[in-house]
Amino acid sequence: MSKKTIIVFSGEYDRLIAAFTIANGALAMDDEVTMFFTFWGLSALRKQGKPAQAKKSFLQKMFSGMLPHQAETTPLSSFNFGGMGRGLMKKVMKAGNIMSVSELMASAREQGVKIIACTMSMDVLGIGKDELIDGIEYAGVATYLGEADEANVNLFI
Amino acid sequence: MSKKTIIVFSGEYDRLIAAFTIANGALAMDDEVTMFFTFWGLSALRKQGKPAQAKKSFLQKMFSGMLPHQAETTPLSSFNFGGMGRGLMKKVMKAGNIMSVSELMASAREQGVKIIACTMSMDVLGIGKDELIDGIEYAGVATYLGEADEANVNLFI
Amino acid sequence: MSKKTIIVFSGEYDRLIAAFTIANGALAMDDEVTMFFTFWGLSALRKQGKPAQAKKSFLQKMFSGMLPHQAETTPLSSFNFGGMGRGLMKKVMKAGNIMSVSELMASAREQGVKIIACTMSMDVLGIGKDELIDGIEYAGVATYLGEADEANVNLFI
Repeated sequence: MSKKTIIVFSGEYDRLIAAFTIANGALAMDDEVTMFFTFWGLSALRKQGKPAQAKKSFLQKMFSGMLPHQAETTPLSSFNFGGMGRGLMKKVMKAGNIMSVSELMASAREQGVKIIACTMSMDVLGIGKDELIDGIEYAGVATYLGEADEANVNLFI
Repeated sequence: MSKKTIIVFSGEYDRLIAAFTIANGALAMDDEVTMFFTFWGLSALRKQGKPAQAKKSFLQKMFSGMLPHQAETTPLSSFNFGGMGRGLMKKVMKAGNIMSVSELMASAREQGVKIIACTMSMDVLGIGKDELIDGIEYAGVATYLGEADEANVNLFI
Repeated sequence: MSKKTIIVFSGEYDRLIAAFTIANGALAMDDEVTMFFTFWGLSALRKQGKPAQAKKSFLQKMFSGMLPHQAETTPLSSFNFGGMGRGLMKKVMKAGNIMSVSELMASAREQGVKIIACTMSMDVLGIGKDELIDGIEYAGVATYLGEADEANVNLFI
């Protein structure tokens, strides 16, 4: 039993599958897992629907408006073709009984993954706490480094 | 002497150079190296030519048909320009006596690298064992994590 | 107090922010940090302006001519839109008093980060030492691996 950390920088469907598959694998082996979501990876943590917005600058609205509104609508890192590639991949996965990103995330949460949203990149991208799913933590790089110092495997995805 | 693991998620020529250069460097220092190929990284393990196909769904055929058929035809992650960038890079490398990806892979194999193909992403992308090079292992995330627990450097490329 | 290494392979503004933010965070906690710049990451180390060129082949000129000439003009990895996305991100960051990549790099250097430029990728991309900023080291993969063996967190960005 040991600890793993994963920085989830990318918000692409295939990279999110990789990140959550590793997390679930480690949790199944009784490891502790901390996932630190930053930049485009924050897409995976967005609530479905549009929450009421507090105060956002015009520039922040532009960025957060462009970002996918949930994990299941993020693009692939290759062969996305405007979402067709992702749709295709999801169909193949379903046919093969492979879990989708939202199912993988639900499974990781049931097994006790610690999810941290990077507050600095929330500021950069104009994402408020009311837009992200419940039950997660908010912190910066110092918290990540503290977790990484305790872990034996640290990945940047 | 220690162990290194590299997850090769990306199937881009420049990232494959990076992955195999690190692997060769570590092997030359008498380290053990395990490379775990997943998603687009599987391109690097494809046999040249088209092997006879067992059973593939229509969706799987689409994905595996789009993937490059060997390491030397993978694109660059930047400045690829439909393959021109990669061609240019390969020319510069040849002129400077820098090994190509297939040469780097051959060298790593001679030095005893352990290559594992991720069975879950083979399913997702519709890639069969008969399409991949010989002498490699097939496994999932639990095997990767077992290797990573024994290693002192673990990278995701 | 421990050591961290970061391979900076990507030359994208958002990934450079991530790399330098982690470096600064670790340096602030009295860790040693080694950043190994390779491939597109070398963009971050380029001097402003065009230094006089010694000898470069035509092919090398093409690659080094395409690369951004300094960290502040590198693209975003997502939503770049020909530089508009990066401009937008920089405005949001400035409004929020978040440091730019060049400010983050200056801060890391003040705190004693060790910066290494990968000589093999300088050859591949046709980048000479006279084009890179002063006060950095030049080395290859063996040096990186020596540093990584001493570190407890090793990331590939």
